[in-house]
Amino acid sequence: MIEIERKFLVNSNAYRDEAYKSIRIVQGFLNTDPERTVRIRIKGDEGIITVKGKSSEDGLKRFEWEKQISVEDAEALLELCEPIKIDKTRYLVKKEQHTFEIDEFYGANEGLIIAEIELNSEDESFVKPAWLGDEVTGDIRYYNSHLSKIPYTTWI
Amino acid sequence: MIEIERKFLVNSNAYRDEAYKSIRIVQGFLNTDPERTVRIRIKGDEGIITVKGKSSEDGLKRFEWEKQISVEDAEALLELCEPIKIDKTRYLVKKEQHTFEIDEFYGANEGLIIAEIELNSEDESFVKPAWLGDEVTGDIRYYNSHLSKIPYTTWI
Repeated sequence: MIEIERKFLVNSNAYRDEAYKSIRIVQGFLNTDPERTVRIRIKGDEGIITVKGKSSEDGLKRFEWEKQISVEDAEALLELCEPIKIDKTRYLVKKEQHTFEIDEFYGANEGLIIAEIELNSEDESFVKPAWLGDEVTGDIRYYNSHLSKIPYTTWI
Repeated sequence: MIEIERKFLVNSNAYRDEAYKSIRIVQGFLNTDPERTVRIRIKGDEGIITVKGKSSEDGLKRFEWEKQISVEDAEALLELCEPIKIDKTRYLVKKEQHTFEIDEFYGANEGLIIAEIELNSEDESFVKPAWLGDEVTGDIRYYNSHLSKIPYTTWI
């Protein structure tokens, strides 16, 4: 139930050609309190409810609990969520034993691209693709819960 | 997904002798915002996550979505919930075609007893037992989400 993730900005669109899969994701939040976020997501043709706890000091570890639900239930629950929805396409890129998830945002977060990699330990090494930019692990501005409150297009 | 419920205070302990079942309930909230409460409950030997929307003006109708989860998951999620947990025993009393749920509260809400009845329509008639007291339908002070913020023992 604990995930270790590192998060990076992205320099170019080159990841698109390297992706083995892409999927549209629409999500909203029933709670954006960092202590206990509750997310409703429609990912392709599945619905998911996810609860996340507070990150560790270094932003690397976080309690996460997920449960699959029907798309119909997810749609009804999205209606109840806080107003700004997150809409993005996720590209999956494999680099040796790891998979990068690259999120291209639309709507209120248009222009933002973030790559994430899940690791088994905090010091695990991984291949860094050329398109990988500055690390933003632990920077709460890039949390989806935060982007649904203060979206990227309002930052400048 | 819409429930119609009426809620009453309780005058005596007579419901205990009429109950065909009782069950211990421990619950906490991941969100107490009336627009989108998220509740984690352990009810006897089952875990449940419940999302409720805002009540209608008259307090009778409310969106409700539930999903069963494991007790282990519920215990982990309770750890994440807001600090004051609700602890109560629920007695079930059948009166003709309806069932009353009577909640006896403990801990921070000791002394409070509430009866609820679920109806099929807003004007459906039902048998009123002698122990049934004043109606408190729609009074947010008696919401469990509110009792977990401002518990009964702090009211006086």
